[in-house]
Amino acid sequence: MSTTTTEYQVTGMSCGHCESAVREEVSAIPGVTGIDVSAATGRLTVTAEQPIDDAAVIAAVDEAGYEAARS
Amino acid sequence: MSTTTTEYQVTGMSCGHCESAVREEVSAIPGVTGIDVSAATGRLTVTAEQPIDDAAVIAAVDEAGYEAARS
Repeated sequence: MSTTTTEYQVTGMSCGHCESAVREEVSAIPGVTGIDVSAATGRLTVTAEQPIDDAAVIAAVDEAGYEAARS
Repeated sequence: MSTTTTEYQVTGMSCGHCESAVREEVSAIPGVTGIDVSAATGRLTVTAEQPIDDAAVIAAVDEAGYEAARS
């Protein structure tokens, strides 16, 4: 099985709770198999079974209360 | 009914999630009827039916992951 990894920059996260909020929303996107997120760097790395829709990731992060951009 | 209000200074909160975590733990203390907490100022104000045990409040804040001191 191949996987695809996509990186985003998230602004506004300040702590582990923020990371958890982003993780929870992004993990609900179909096909997502892995998430790495850091409040310290703002980096969000999403691993999926196949290329995921940037808009879906950005919308999920927005739902969590933060802003993401493909990096 | 009389109430008593006690103020604490909490260090380490950075966002609304942190405030919620503190609020959740402190609200579990018997007798607590009101909580005001601000990540911006670190101020935690606890209202209770009768004087509350500082140690209980400090322990609850510790449980949430932060440090409090009576102010």
